[in-house]
Amino acid sequence: MALTIGVDIGGTKIAAGVVDPEGRILRHAKAPTPRGDGELLAEAVAGLVRELRESDREPPTAVGIGTAGFVDEARSRIVLAGNLGLSDDPVRERIARRTDLPVVVENDANAAAWAEVRFGAGRGCRDAVVVTLGTGVGGALIVDGELRRGRFGAAGEIGHYRMVPFGRRCACGNQGCWEQYASGSALVAEARALAAAEPVSAARLLEAAGGDPEGIEGPEVTRAAREGDPAALRCFAAVGEWVGQGLADLAAILDPECFVVGGGVSAAGEILLKPAREAYARAVTGKATRRLADVRPAELGGEAGIIGAADLALR
Amino acid sequence: MALTIGVDIGGTKIAAGVVDPEGRILRHAKAPTPRGDGELLAEAVAGLVRELRESDREPPTAVGIGTAGFVDEARSRIVLAGNLGLSDDPVRERIARRTDLPVVVENDANAAAWAEVRFGAGRGCRDAVVVTLGTGVGGALIVDGELRRGRFGAAGEIGHYRMVPFGRRCACGNQGCWEQYASGSALVAEARALAAAEPVSAARLLEAAGGDPEGIEGPEVTRAAREGDPAALRCFAAVGEWVGQGLADLAAILDPECFVVGGGVSAAGEILLKPAREAYARAVTGKATRRLADVRPAELGGEAGIIGAADLALR
Amino acid sequence: MALTIGVDIGGTKIAAGVVDPEGRILRHAKAPTPRGDGELLAEAVAGLVRELRESDREPPTAVGIGTAGFVDEARSRIVLAGNLGLSDDPVRERIARRTDLPVVVENDANAAAWAEVRFGAGRGCRDAVVVTLGTGVGGALIVDGELRRGRFGAAGEIGHYRMVPFGRRCACGNQGCWEQYASGSALVAEARALAAAEPVSAARLLEAAGGDPEGIEGPEVTRAAREGDPAALRCFAAVGEWVGQGLADLAAILDPECFVVGGGVSAAGEILLKPAREAYARAVTGKATRRLADVRPAELGGEAGIIGAADLALR
Amino acid sequence: MALTIGVDIGGTKIAAGVVDPEGRILRHAKAPTPRGDGELLAEAVAGLVRELRESDREPPTAVGIGTAGFVDEARSRIVLAGNLGLSDDPVRERIARRTDLPVVVENDANAAAWAEVRFGAGRGCRDAVVVTLGTGVGGALIVDGELRRGRFGAAGEIGHYRMVPFGRRCACGNQGCWEQYASGSALVAEARALAAAEPVSAARLLEAAGGDPEGIEGPEVTRAAREGDPAALRCFAAVGEWVGQGLADLAAILDPECFVVGGGVSAAGEILLKPAREAYARAVTGKATRRLADVRPAELGGEAGIIGAADLALR
Repeated sequence: MALTIGVDIGGTKIAAGVVDPEGRILRHAKAPTPRGDGELLAEAVAGLVRELRESDREPPTAVGIGTAGFVDEARSRIVLAGNLGLSDDPVRERIARRTDLPVVVENDANAAAWAEVRFGAGRGCRDAVVVTLGTGVGGALIVDGELRRGRFGAAGEIGHYRMVPFGRRCACGNQGCWEQYASGSALVAEARALAAAEPVSAARLLEAAGGDPEGIEGPEVTRAAREGDPAALRCFAAVGEWVGQGLADLAAILDPECFVVGGGVSAAGEILLKPAREAYARAVTGKATRRLADVRPAELGGEAGIIGAADLALR
Repeated sequence: MALTIGVDIGGTKIAAGVVDPEGRILRHAKAPTPRGDGELLAEAVAGLVRELRESDREPPTAVGIGTAGFVDEARSRIVLAGNLGLSDDPVRERIARRTDLPVVVENDANAAAWAEVRFGAGRGCRDAVVVTLGTGVGGALIVDGELRRGRFGAAGEIGHYRMVPFGRRCACGNQGCWEQYASGSALVAEARALAAAEPVSAARLLEAAGGDPEGIEGPEVTRAAREGDPAALRCFAAVGEWVGQGLADLAAILDPECFVVGGGVSAAGEILLKPAREAYARAVTGKATRRLADVRPAELGGEAGIIGAADLALR
Repeated sequence: MALTIGVDIGGTKIAAGVVDPEGRILRHAKAPTPRGDGELLAEAVAGLVRELRESDREPPTAVGIGTAGFVDEARSRIVLAGNLGLSDDPVRERIARRTDLPVVVENDANAAAWAEVRFGAGRGCRDAVVVTLGTGVGGALIVDGELRRGRFGAAGEIGHYRMVPFGRRCACGNQGCWEQYASGSALVAEARALAAAEPVSAARLLEAAGGDPEGIEGPEVTRAAREGDPAALRCFAAVGEWVGQGLADLAAILDPECFVVGGGVSAAGEILLKPAREAYARAVTGKATRRLADVRPAELGGEAGIIGAADLALR
Repeated sequence: MALTIGVDIGGTKIAAGVVDPEGRILRHAKAPTPRGDGELLAEAVAGLVRELRESDREPPTAVGIGTAGFVDEARSRIVLAGNLGLSDDPVRERIARRTDLPVVVENDANAAAWAEVRFGAGRGCRDAVVVTLGTGVGGALIVDGELRRGRFGAAGEIGHYRMVPFGRRCACGNQGCWEQYASGSALVAEARALAAAEPVSAARLLEAAGGDPEGIEGPEVTRAAREGDPAALRCFAAVGEWVGQGLADLAAILDPECFVVGGGVSAAGEILLKPAREAYARAVTGKATRRLADVRPAELGGEAGIIGAADLALR
């Protein structure tokens, strides 16, 4: 049985684990993330790898890294990772040198997406899009059974195709990007606008925010929606509608078997997915005759990054 | 040297050819398309195959079919082909039985796209999108060196992702589909609207249409644009802008190395591609740092279908 | 009691009547419309005026004309009236010469709108917008108790402000005009698209049109909606939503006391007005604090033109 | 010669003047604005009135007040004035009691607009729209020679009709309001986005802001544009385009003889007005045949409020 080590490098901590071929994490290890120094980061990762190897009877045979930031097309360097304070860092070589193991580097969202398709909500799907609804909207494309990164490693920037001409401004510099409508930020903006315009309807949301619409945050909207608050449910319905429209657009282009929807916003589960699924079914081209893709919630939660990175190292 | 036969089944004629591994057509044959009867159609194709085999010293080893209409995900049956008058037709089995050769069936646009990537404008690109600007907008996705069809064979319906909320109505039943802005129909609509609103500016276009804006057709707009007519050039600039926005959206999602732009509208060459390329470069997310995909005109013209089908049969 | 004569010149017939100061028509007369000849048209109108005067004990003191087409800012000439076959015709002078009475000329839609505000749904409102939902969308502005025509006589072209950037093409040459979303044509387009996309849901509408979506016409959609057909009701809901958004935009600009909604589409009454009113209330700026305008159905029907023209002649 | 006193109540100071029937200010007076107390505010205004009366040989016969905030339809009370800290304040009665003169109260933007139409850029126009491009977009309607306030005093909220469905969020709670595209805030947002996306092109703007896109402010964009900076000119071109589209929409509805464009953004003069005028001419419905309204810069600057208020008191 081939074991590998998966490492998930985030802005504050590094989480690692020994993973078996079934995607089970056998042992965990973690450490804080050193920022702004590639050598220190590699050393921290190597330390975790050493720790995990020692305790193994059957030693892991490879290391998979899922890292925040943009990874080059050779899957070797971190091109830019703002919240690690790194740019153009030869992360693969640094870690390989220290561990004497083959190392694979992948973007963390891609690694997590891969885990969902291998062992989570998308298992068995050879064609899938993993949509991550966090502060923004991220994505990963699985086409014919493999994670696809595009020619320059930038595929899956699905949050930045244009949904609305002259729409809301996006931090990417464009206007009307999908993530301005379908993300956690969009949910919060929706709730704040609703609270400002209709304070009575939004009493529950306002109360939790001390009466200030601008104090409303995402987790509270989710909590309120779960408890049946109509205002919060309206916010999810609005965002879900935009999510569904985006899935319809992606289906026209990619025709996947399933969409796996993860990220913080998806914690609301069917509260979000039901309107998304309905909007998708209404909006997709050829709806009268086509087979609809499943729209499923992600299953693996926070450990998806470790599992996916480890599995990518197997290949 | 393995030769294969490529067959392009269109609404009025069937064109076939013996193709070598370099994508050269060695011999041609053609026949009218029998409509509405799968047996007759298969017999006509088999007749062309026989004709082409007889004349060969080195006999072809397989047959690739590119057909109008929608092909099932097993690439075996025509699910629906309106202009062949067929639905749910076991075309592969019918032809295989008659020819005793392995048969591969593909949608004709996909076959032509494949030829462009193997031997034409996209050769050498492992990640490409072939965009066909005809009456509508069609597409084919090449990801990691292979033509990808999606889970249900419907990938590449790029003309039907939504470009404009509440936009122009599309025959697909939706509103605001890309093809309502970036196709040959869109070019003609642009020219007609311009001629109605500004008859003086559009004098050249109107004259060719006998004075009736509704009489303006695409080829005349292309001809006028080539001869420098400012009104026709404005129409191409408008459509090119929409083409470029669409390429930007596709690049965000797929990150290809190149876009190959074919179809009737692309006959205008740089008149269309220049504004498209500029709009793409302006609109693509991450433009400050990303590598831009090439935007190239298709090269193989009308024979791309035969060549691509033949090459697919090699695999 | 001052009586006046109101004349409504339409494309096929001229309807006239003696009207008292309360807006009651005391006597009627009518004649076919002579087309393409201003002298003949004036003669026909003068004939009706003579006929109506003879029968009166108390003779009318003035003539008000409501005519199809565009009337100049001096309310004296028909600038252009396509369906009368006239342009730049000195209609006031022609009729005044023949009748020896003071003559006032107004656009027919304005005349009808004036009647609604004086004696119909808008009576008592010093600030009103009359919205006519026919094939297109027309409008008339009553500001501070008077019909206002703008500087050049073209005010109230409310169907042609832009509702959707890059939206549906309009016969006026622009894109996204309100009337492409809120008119009778829009209702029919909605019904046809629905019938094409969802033939089962739209069975009732399709049946009445002999199975062809393109055969669906407005009156049938209204009839079906009145009988509770869910598909027809969806069409009215969609159009009503757009009507309401437009009213919200007009309210932001004009702040009227009421909107009077007339024209063929408004025959559906509350089926249209309810969704329109709801969308208006949701969309209008400052909704939390502002006083909402009433949204009322027109009351005077086909005789509004005669009544309004007659009343304008009193002033 | 009838003299009147005009008073302009702003958030920080009260400016007053004796104005002659030709709109000339003969004498000035001013005082700081007491906030949050209607009695103190009225006392401050009355003090200025006394001061101005004493020095006059010919005593003023009435007082016109232009005040920040929302004035009721009877032009008697301040309904709400956030930056005066007042709501539902009987300002007219308070001042009339103290001065023994007839008092007229108007919103300050309306007062200034009236001055422009009486004595400034719009003089001689009986139908005009005064558009104020400040932080937001305000407006005042002159129809048939009179300032019109709508039924509930809220007419002219032209910044809040919807320009873009699902567009940028507005502080009013809606999305896509015109002022999100055509105001000073929009200009600044445009410049900041440009500076973030294209730092090289925007070097001049960035330098003035200490290198931080978010530090860019409107006056600097205007200065840079005046000195020919291409990036700043692009920002004005973009905003001007939106201004022009809005004028086209207003022209369709109101058909004015002229638009007077004032407010901070209009300080750029033709840099803004030229693209606005061009976009207006391109976008207005019926452009082939209609008479275009003039688009003129406001002329009276900061004293328009005093002059307009004084003139309104004459009526």
